[in-house]
Amino acid sequence: MSPLFSSLVFTIFFALSACTICRADEGMWLFNDLPAERLQQRYQFEPGQAWVDHLRLSSVRFNVGGSGSFVSSDGLVLTNHHVASDTLYKLSTAERNIMDDGFLAERYEDELRAPDLELNQLVAIVDVTERVQAAVPEGLDADAAAAARRAVMVAIEKESLDETGFRSDVVTLFGGAAYHLYRYKKYTDVRLVWAPETAIAFFGGDADNFEYPRYCMDATLMRVYEDGQPAKLEHFLRWRDTALTEDELVFVSGHPGRTQRMFTVDALKFLRDQRIPFVLDYLRRKEIMLQQYGLQGREQRRRGRDELFGIQNARKAYTGMLAGLQDPATIFSKQTAETELLAAVANDPSLAPLAAAWSKISEIQAQKAALLRQTTSFRSRLYEIAETLNLMAEEDAKPNEQRLREYAQAGRESLLQDLLSEAPIYDDLERAKLSDEIARLVEQRGGDDELVVEILAGKGPRPRATELIAETELADVAKRQALVDAGQSAVHASTDPMIQLARLMEPHYRQLRQQREALEEQERQAYTQITQATNAIRGTDTYPDATFTLRLAFGTVRGYHQDGQWIAPWTNLAGTYQHAESHAGQEDFDLPARWLKKRPNVDGQVQMNFVCTADIIGGNSGSPVVDREGKLVGLIFDGNIQSLTNDYVFSDQQGRAVSVAAAAIREVLRSVYQAPELADSLGR
Amino acid sequence: MSPLFSSLVFTIFFALSACTICRADEGMWLFNDLPAERLQQRYQFEPGQAWVDHLRLSSVRFNVGGSGSFVSSDGLVLTNHHVASDTLYKLSTAERNIMDDGFLAERYEDELRAPDLELNQLVAIVDVTERVQAAVPEGLDADAAAAARRAVMVAIEKESLDETGFRSDVVTLFGGAAYHLYRYKKYTDVRLVWAPETAIAFFGGDADNFEYPRYCMDATLMRVYEDGQPAKLEHFLRWRDTALTEDELVFVSGHPGRTQRMFTVDALKFLRDQRIPFVLDYLRRKEIMLQQYGLQGREQRRRGRDELFGIQNARKAYTGMLAGLQDPATIFSKQTAETELLAAVANDPSLAPLAAAWSKISEIQAQKAALLRQTTSFRSRLYEIAETLNLMAEEDAKPNEQRLREYAQAGRESLLQDLLSEAPIYDDLERAKLSDEIARLVEQRGGDDELVVEILAGKGPRPRATELIAETELADVAKRQALVDAGQSAVHASTDPMIQLARLMEPHYRQLRQQREALEEQERQAYTQITQATNAIRGTDTYPDATFTLRLAFGTVRGYHQDGQWIAPWTNLAGTYQHAESHAGQEDFDLPARWLKKRPNVDGQVQMNFVCTADIIGGNSGSPVVDREGKLVGLIFDGNIQSLTNDYVFSDQQGRAVSVAAAAIREVLRSVYQAPELADSLGR
Repeated sequence: MSPLFSSLVFTIFFALSACTICRADEGMWLFNDLPAERLQQRYQFEPGQAWVDHLRLSSVRFNVGGSGSFVSSDGLVLTNHHVASDTLYKLSTAERNIMDDGFLAERYEDELRAPDLELNQLVAIVDVTERVQAAVPEGLDADAAAAARRAVMVAIEKESLDETGFRSDVVTLFGGAAYHLYRYKKYTDVRLVWAPETAIAFFGGDADNFEYPRYCMDATLMRVYEDGQPAKLEHFLRWRDTALTEDELVFVSGHPGRTQRMFTVDALKFLRDQRIPFVLDYLRRKEIMLQQYGLQGREQRRRGRDELFGIQNARKAYTGMLAGLQDPATIFSKQTAETELLAAVANDPSLAPLAAAWSKISEIQAQKAALLRQTTSFRSRLYEIAETLNLMAEEDAKPNEQRLREYAQAGRESLLQDLLSEAPIYDDLERAKLSDEIARLVEQRGGDDELVVEILAGKGPRPRATELIAETELADVAKRQALVDAGQSAVHASTDPMIQLARLMEPHYRQLRQQREALEEQERQAYTQITQATNAIRGTDTYPDATFTLRLAFGTVRGYHQDGQWIAPWTNLAGTYQHAESHAGQEDFDLPARWLKKRPNVDGQVQMNFVCTADIIGGNSGSPVVDREGKLVGLIFDGNIQSLTNDYVFSDQQGRAVSVAAAAIREVLRSVYQAPELADSLGR
Repeated sequence: MSPLFSSLVFTIFFALSACTICRADEGMWLFNDLPAERLQQRYQFEPGQAWVDHLRLSSVRFNVGGSGSFVSSDGLVLTNHHVASDTLYKLSTAERNIMDDGFLAERYEDELRAPDLELNQLVAIVDVTERVQAAVPEGLDADAAAAARRAVMVAIEKESLDETGFRSDVVTLFGGAAYHLYRYKKYTDVRLVWAPETAIAFFGGDADNFEYPRYCMDATLMRVYEDGQPAKLEHFLRWRDTALTEDELVFVSGHPGRTQRMFTVDALKFLRDQRIPFVLDYLRRKEIMLQQYGLQGREQRRRGRDELFGIQNARKAYTGMLAGLQDPATIFSKQTAETELLAAVANDPSLAPLAAAWSKISEIQAQKAALLRQTTSFRSRLYEIAETLNLMAEEDAKPNEQRLREYAQAGRESLLQDLLSEAPIYDDLERAKLSDEIARLVEQRGGDDELVVEILAGKGPRPRATELIAETELADVAKRQALVDAGQSAVHASTDPMIQLARLMEPHYRQLRQQREALEEQERQAYTQITQATNAIRGTDTYPDATFTLRLAFGTVRGYHQDGQWIAPWTNLAGTYQHAESHAGQEDFDLPARWLKKRPNVDGQVQMNFVCTADIIGGNSGSPVVDREGKLVGLIFDGNIQSLTNDYVFSDQQGRAVSVAAAAIREVLRSVYQAPELADSLGR
């Protein structure tokens, strides 16, 4: 990492509240700029380049938004059940209910291929900051600057892809102060090996989610294939079966999705007073809609379950984030630090002009608020397919550099894998979702709005959605392929009502997207200046906000005090059975039949879940937790409720990352799932 | 009823779509102005004054927002389980779970007294229109007019109470064109006799709610007492055990809560684009909050269940209402009728000035929208107690005519019964509710708002709510009584933090209430003019919008076509068992153990639920359905999903009222609940 940045801007916030926090294990560090000195001073640990490279190459990104790791020489990939659940869901049918019943492949031939999963292994990082910044001269207006920036990023990605064959993504860091090119080896033949029952993977359900102590086997094993054979892997994590010890140093290598720690106070107030309340209204709406759909029958419940879980998870996370922001102490501490910083900026004539960036961010929030309640797309799989087909046809007619980013050449393979997925689409679920989305648009724009009148075509939202879904042919992958092949003129001529709806929405979609991207560009420019000012005053030893790229976090295995009680850092398998017994009769606290039956076989002393102080956030789900030797000791699957404020402020006073212990996975594969060979192959 | 009104304004809407609708059994008729001619012409039925008076005096209003009827000479009252559930809930404890297990009193002595239920029997109606209108001279501004109107209504009520001893309410009809004084005999010693298990009362749960066919024993029996003895009743409904026949004429005598059929198109658009979306966001928020609370354990689930049911019921009803309004055909038909009417008004020089009323309504909607998102109260029982105590102390210091209406002398007994109720208050439920309410206020006003800062007192919403609930003493009824007795100075001196919070909110509460009441006054004046214009053009044989006062509706027992299928008008007890079997494994479709065990005793041919075309709405729940002879044949408990638009437009094409058949109640009391004496006493 560029030596221009400092973590002081973050750590100073905590100095105000408690001194234990000064020692916080904060940071989601870039693999090409690890905090060597800090690790050395605090933990007398020096990783060495080989240790770092091995961990990086053993780490896996799931394109559905999670993390994982390679854990055997023959291609085994370990992740969370809840990261795999998108695939488990797509592989399930009314007859083969993998979500409820779990899955175990006895042999390679029994492994089930995921319909559209892509895994990424990070093979190289190249700093391209200078080239990106040179392509965006000062003085351009926001639209032109955004276009120029997009163009150079698309060009760099295309060149890299052509040159290396690797998936190539330019990543924006420090809110726009740095740009790195990430090259990934892609695995697209990924097969399911083992998944436990949802009842134990998500034991305790929505009630226990984000709580601790926990007792979840939130793990799944997949396998990557190359040329139809299990991939032979050089880099994979070895397995540790011995127990974790208190205060032991551990590392988390994963893909935190997004944090907002750089945000100014006004940007946080926008989240508090506008964006998060808006998002929560949206999530609660979808949660009720999916619950209602699921009430129609067992099969509907199965069909809606995966999406419902995602919505509930997000709703609970955002609720915690909002609670943190609504605590006056949070904003007070951020405000105090910002006031100090601004005073220092004002006192330095060379920095003083940068102070305008804070006001600029403030202005932009008001503009963002005005765009917040606008919808120009519908969350329905069939609609999204139509939208993608239509936009792809339009974008393909443009030079690569001028396209919307996801339609540029470098990303084409990944885009098509998703677009042409054979994953099942359920008409009745689509109807429930699209009806609600259209109804929501009517609410947002009002029933007299011209676009609304056109979309409804004289019908209420539900009859209209019913008609669209009955008449579209896009559920058929061959029809999608045909439109991809035939391109723009075929899309223009299409009489498919869903394509026609996407075309009707297109100008509105483009306009809103352009407005939002122009604001993002202005924010990038302002945060680049804020970063400059901050670094000048506080130094440069820090890490950028999360960007769903590989980061290293570290911390220790440690319990915490809550409501006057000491919460021990780990649970064990025996506790899992006790937890079920003490919640008998409550929904989501029934252990799977297999777990009850095999109880006598299970070694109750084996650690089940544990907490550590490492700095994680959504996207880290499935991240490997390794010890000093780089051996796998656990699998991140959650943060406790106190960690939900990690989004904008880290604290390890009570906030903890929650993991499945590696030892428990091996133990239950042997004792409960009767899979000794699979258990033995872990880490080998 | 005054001969000034016509139903043409409503029926004309239907003439546009289908001719079956022209014969619609529309109307929620005033008992002092029944549509004699219409009943004679359509059904050759002449009720006669004795028939009408007997039905009125056998009808019961539940102050919790439902209806019921007297059904025996020794005081039995029949209503819905879901109307009684507020009382069933308050009588339940962790050990005596009446909601889950049902209840049956073997003897009078076993009957459980409801902690705060008030039943009303309508004994007289007096037209006071002239006196109210004379007290509000033209030319007053909205605030002064509202105050003058409130003063005369309060004075009339006080006089009537002093003169007769009856509860006396002045009711606003036709949006302000008529005022009637309703005198009620009150029953406040009400005891629980029999309640079935929620599993059969609400069989099929949220999934089946508002659906048909149905199989619900949504019934409960209570008994009114006077001077500690079962009341001896002169007027009660006799029971009919013979089956209902197709197209049979039936009558519904109950208390529809609120309809909006008089609304102008712009008022409906305000509902469609503003008010209902806002209410739905609120309801979904509360639904999720209560679900989350219930996930904490079985006891929490029990504690939150009654309120959760109410919220879910309202959410489903509003969803249906909004879907109707979002159907362009609805507004189109209303618009067509309004355009015709306005053209006729414009053509008549004596009426033309009244056209301004439509524009006035339109302007008022925009002002209402601006006030929509303001909260100046919190939905938590302990807060509501504090708010009532504080307002009561302030209002009592004013002359009776100047008080807020609910604090005037005529309503004091009812107010105190609620305020001093011994119904349990659960700290953890209060905490969940108040936390969420405070968080919601922070969202609405923003975290930097002055009032918000004062309310939070430096803490986040949850810690603040926790502190308020831990420190208030208002859970103790004696403390409430002491504050009532000591009055204003004691309330001012109170250090109870909930009282202090209510005092902090008071000026905001009063300001918002005044703004809203001024708008309501302006709306009343405009609708009075609209009523004048409408009557002049269309005649005067009609009924006012619902006002939670006694009305008579009528219709026939009739099935309907849905999705090409004929839905038969009734189900039977055998079908109930089949419905459970065909939904095995689905939540809320398990019959109570007693029902399964006693199945061989049950006469499967007895009618269980049935539909009719009578015009009902929320508040009609529990209404008796009687035949031409005035005998009880059923008990309204729901409307089907197609009837949800009844709020603003009636149609009997598919819309139906859903009832429990009286015969089924007697049958299951005998065969399932083994209560032959109680069964025999029904209607006797």
